[in-house]
Amino acid sequence: MMRTHEAGSLRAGHAGQTVTLAGWVARRRDHGGVIFIDLRDASGVSQVVFREGEMAERAHRLRAEFCIRVTGEVIRRPAGNENPEIATGEIEVTAVELEVLSEAAPLPFPLDDHLEVGEEVRLRHRYLDLRRSEPARIMRMRSEVNRIARDVLHGRDFVEVETPTMTRSTPEGARDFLIPARLQPGNWYALPQSPQLFKQLLMVGGLERYFQIARCYRDEDFRADRQPEFTQLDIEMSFVDQDDVIELGEEILAALWSKLSDHEIPRPIPRMTYAEAMAKYGTDKPDLRFGLELTDMTEYFKDTTFRVFQAPYVGAVVMPGGADQPRRQLDAWQEWAKQRGHKGLAYVLVGADGTLSGPVAKNLSDAERDGIAKAVGAAPGDCVFFAAGPRSAARGLLGAARLEIGERCGLIDHDAWSFVWVVDAPMFEPVDETDDVAVGASGWTAVHHPFTSPNADWIDTFDQDPEHALAWAYDIVCNGNEIGGGSIRIHRSDIQERVFELLGISREQAQDKFGFLLEAFKYGPPPHGGIAFGWDRTCMLLAGADSLRDVIAFPKSGGGFDPLTAAPSPITIEQRKEAGIDAKPAAQVGDQSISVFPPGVVEKQG
Amino acid sequence: MMRTHEAGSLRAGHAGQTVTLAGWVARRRDHGGVIFIDLRDASGVSQVVFREGEMAERAHRLRAEFCIRVTGEVIRRPAGNENPEIATGEIEVTAVELEVLSEAAPLPFPLDDHLEVGEEVRLRHRYLDLRRSEPARIMRMRSEVNRIARDVLHGRDFVEVETPTMTRSTPEGARDFLIPARLQPGNWYALPQSPQLFKQLLMVGGLERYFQIARCYRDEDFRADRQPEFTQLDIEMSFVDQDDVIELGEEILAALWSKLSDHEIPRPIPRMTYAEAMAKYGTDKPDLRFGLELTDMTEYFKDTTFRVFQAPYVGAVVMPGGADQPRRQLDAWQEWAKQRGHKGLAYVLVGADGTLSGPVAKNLSDAERDGIAKAVGAAPGDCVFFAAGPRSAARGLLGAARLEIGERCGLIDHDAWSFVWVVDAPMFEPVDETDDVAVGASGWTAVHHPFTSPNADWIDTFDQDPEHALAWAYDIVCNGNEIGGGSIRIHRSDIQERVFELLGISREQAQDKFGFLLEAFKYGPPPHGGIAFGWDRTCMLLAGADSLRDVIAFPKSGGGFDPLTAAPSPITIEQRKEAGIDAKPAAQVGDQSISVFPPGVVEKQG
Repeated sequence: MMRTHEAGSLRAGHAGQTVTLAGWVARRRDHGGVIFIDLRDASGVSQVVFREGEMAERAHRLRAEFCIRVTGEVIRRPAGNENPEIATGEIEVTAVELEVLSEAAPLPFPLDDHLEVGEEVRLRHRYLDLRRSEPARIMRMRSEVNRIARDVLHGRDFVEVETPTMTRSTPEGARDFLIPARLQPGNWYALPQSPQLFKQLLMVGGLERYFQIARCYRDEDFRADRQPEFTQLDIEMSFVDQDDVIELGEEILAALWSKLSDHEIPRPIPRMTYAEAMAKYGTDKPDLRFGLELTDMTEYFKDTTFRVFQAPYVGAVVMPGGADQPRRQLDAWQEWAKQRGHKGLAYVLVGADGTLSGPVAKNLSDAERDGIAKAVGAAPGDCVFFAAGPRSAARGLLGAARLEIGERCGLIDHDAWSFVWVVDAPMFEPVDETDDVAVGASGWTAVHHPFTSPNADWIDTFDQDPEHALAWAYDIVCNGNEIGGGSIRIHRSDIQERVFELLGISREQAQDKFGFLLEAFKYGPPPHGGIAFGWDRTCMLLAGADSLRDVIAFPKSGGGFDPLTAAPSPITIEQRKEAGIDAKPAAQVGDQSISVFPPGVVEKQG
Repeated sequence: MMRTHEAGSLRAGHAGQTVTLAGWVARRRDHGGVIFIDLRDASGVSQVVFREGEMAERAHRLRAEFCIRVTGEVIRRPAGNENPEIATGEIEVTAVELEVLSEAAPLPFPLDDHLEVGEEVRLRHRYLDLRRSEPARIMRMRSEVNRIARDVLHGRDFVEVETPTMTRSTPEGARDFLIPARLQPGNWYALPQSPQLFKQLLMVGGLERYFQIARCYRDEDFRADRQPEFTQLDIEMSFVDQDDVIELGEEILAALWSKLSDHEIPRPIPRMTYAEAMAKYGTDKPDLRFGLELTDMTEYFKDTTFRVFQAPYVGAVVMPGGADQPRRQLDAWQEWAKQRGHKGLAYVLVGADGTLSGPVAKNLSDAERDGIAKAVGAAPGDCVFFAAGPRSAARGLLGAARLEIGERCGLIDHDAWSFVWVVDAPMFEPVDETDDVAVGASGWTAVHHPFTSPNADWIDTFDQDPEHALAWAYDIVCNGNEIGGGSIRIHRSDIQERVFELLGISREQAQDKFGFLLEAFKYGPPPHGGIAFGWDRTCMLLAGADSLRDVIAFPKSGGGFDPLTAAPSPITIEQRKEAGIDAKPAAQVGDQSISVFPPGVVEKQG
């Protein structure tokens, strides 16, 4: 090692020792010929003093972020000069040797903790950004997140297995990234959207308890916080029911929050049905750090003459004290709703004396006006927002309004942790209510994926009433963020076939897309289920970070562009030719005689 | 859980208890109306008895690999019926309930431990193959390999960081796999050949101790045992010298072999220079489980009149007792050498009385003949093989012959473990001696990679004598397999520039290919170095497996074909169109104003 001690480890007890440190010049101060340096390494900071004379002269050329090695004596700082704010504040090191290991050009941005510089610049120089204490802390924390979760899983005899990342294009709700296969020109690998099919194969293989911190890939449009590659903690278990998977999930979360956030998650974590979450919070990932439930007013307005409220669903949410909002603020809510694709957000204001005002109020009957405040639980001075229309869209708008109200009115305790399992999710949803890539050709698509089992109540009847059929599927929600989800899978081929039929996936299509899984299920598949945690989001919450990019070492920015390496980039004509990108597919390599895939079938997805 | 106990956990102490087991029918035996089942789960096997009557009748339909759940009473087996060969051999379970969880079709191959079926069939049904005890054991062992290595690294404050797998195409000695970027049509990502550049950036970022069990990708021709995706334990450290990295590497290996192979590796592991390895064993990965060193006979034959031995290098290796080989076996050696691209393998036979015979002997002078046996250390009855020609090729042939002799003569102790560090590797080799993709345009290519530092002796002079310049590079060799390698990296930009110059990489090319790394090195890079272990090969050796495919859950077979999913496969016209595969590259997204990349530069690799 080029040093004897780590800079952050020096204490008063080291006084008198000669030490060698190596690290970076974090700060330099000149005090009348004496030069003070904050020498930073991964462990922390020590103050190094270059006394007058030759040492001070040589230290003069040091600039921010020079990488240096210093030898010197640890001495106690003079009384009154201690710095109680840093761990090494009782000592300083009087340099007797200085070696510049490498110099630093002027920095593109200062490495302050409170940095006001564009993210693009930070990411382009991420290696400098990571020298700042907060990004460095997050990288270390993420490493601990992995360690803690793996400890729980190893303690329960889970087996870590690496599954392939160059695999077959299979539809799992999003587009695949593709890779040309040079050795089989015209054929392509796909990067996996998740290890889903492989982990189910491992269960068929008798592994019983599998986990992997797995890289996953989805070629989606990069709205908001999406990354083309992301990480999940992927888990699958055999001979289990929903409660077993949930119990394990809670054990992992409890360990993480206890060790990294000093928070003991009360267990069992409460469960809420999907139906209740949608009805009360307008979302399947309710933020329960505050109340403010939606009220279903459909029945209340069933005989209304107000055209807008003659709708399949009318709902309301209260903004406490919202009657005080000036007109332009109420107008801004309309704008807010329009940006979400809605026509607007109806409201009534409850005056101090209980009288209602606002454009909607005058369209209501006296009876309707009189009962509203009580029906929605509004007090004088509140504002009541309404949404009317198709149930799912209207609830979605109210759910978003609820969150916005929670923020604006300071109802959210940002130090609180609220966990909830959302269970009894529907098996299917109408195709037009999702923008995922539909797998089949019917009007229904799978809410989770087509291998999700109906629950005990629906196992015989799910295909007679797909709208209401419920699955053994569960999502774990933390402060309004979905951080994990899973399901019990179908292991009976008769049920799998009925699900495919309902989704409009023909036998041939099923063979082409999932043939290897269906083939595997012929050989005594065990009952099994699992869960996957969105690891980036889990780390983001634990770190108290604002963005997924903050918890990824080298994240992509908008459009999947990497500001650091400038990937993706053009390729050469030679690379293109060699990779076989423009080749026509020929017969495949390998003995296909008993393959489940009809060779050469090219089927449109969706 | 669907069971109360694991099948392999039952002991005599459980007698009298009612248990529920779940698992697979491993074996069924009918004994006059009573049916015995070996019920297997991940923990092991228990014998289940279906007594005469209804239970036996229902058990009649059970076939191999049905997945079942059984409830029954644990009883001690009658005296004399115990099976001491299995852990549960003292008990059996008398079934009172049986549930068939799923049925199994007739198996494509029997799940015996001594399986004589083609690998292609096994891999196509890998989920059945994994139910066999040996593949299952290997999967569990590999999980332990990860755990043990991570424990060592966490114990030393290493930080686990995930680096991107969708990145920029950078030449590291092999072809990149490419991915079209739909959102930036005409541009492509590449899968990383290793995290090399990113781990160096993390060192610039001040992380100091990094590790990752990382997936890597190389689009190579699949000779022998290559996989398109493979795994390495990737490590990088700052402020270290070669001894520090080697010490850590030994700690990891010692922990693995101690815990998984019950072998204490003597430490420190011996070191051998690259030059010595090549001279004595004809390879940079010598198998030291046996001796049989090569002898350099160039000097001995310096005045020979035998045309074949008038060569830049003449060397010899002895085959003990080889003089007895019949003529056709000696001919077979010639064939063996020809298959390796050589003209043949010269030999002389040392008779019982010391006289030499064979076609070469008569071409030698008396003096040459008289001294040979002593010079090469041959005894009466031995065969001496010679190779003459360019040094590196001739040594390679003798090194291969040495291994072949070792196997044929039973000189190799297959229970032995021999570790050696091969150090002082050359920095450069002539381009025509490698089949890697050359990075630069000079006659020299980097033996490791262009970021490898010359050692202290050569740091000033490496470019004056590239043939002899040595690097701080080290490989760890186990039983003749290279299982890891690394180097101290260049952190001084002046040295990096001189290396690029020597390799014929122009400033522009360097900017295009490694610009982001060179940019990072402007900002106080620390001295750093690291190592990467070939994790598949390490697991293969620990498992005593014959093939890398045995330690990979879902390996590819020849040509990168996946027998299970039939990947790679054709894509649809829609996929091709949507992915932007045929788009021309446009201007890139992202602010390029201070980018180190000249936008739009498309440079031929190599």
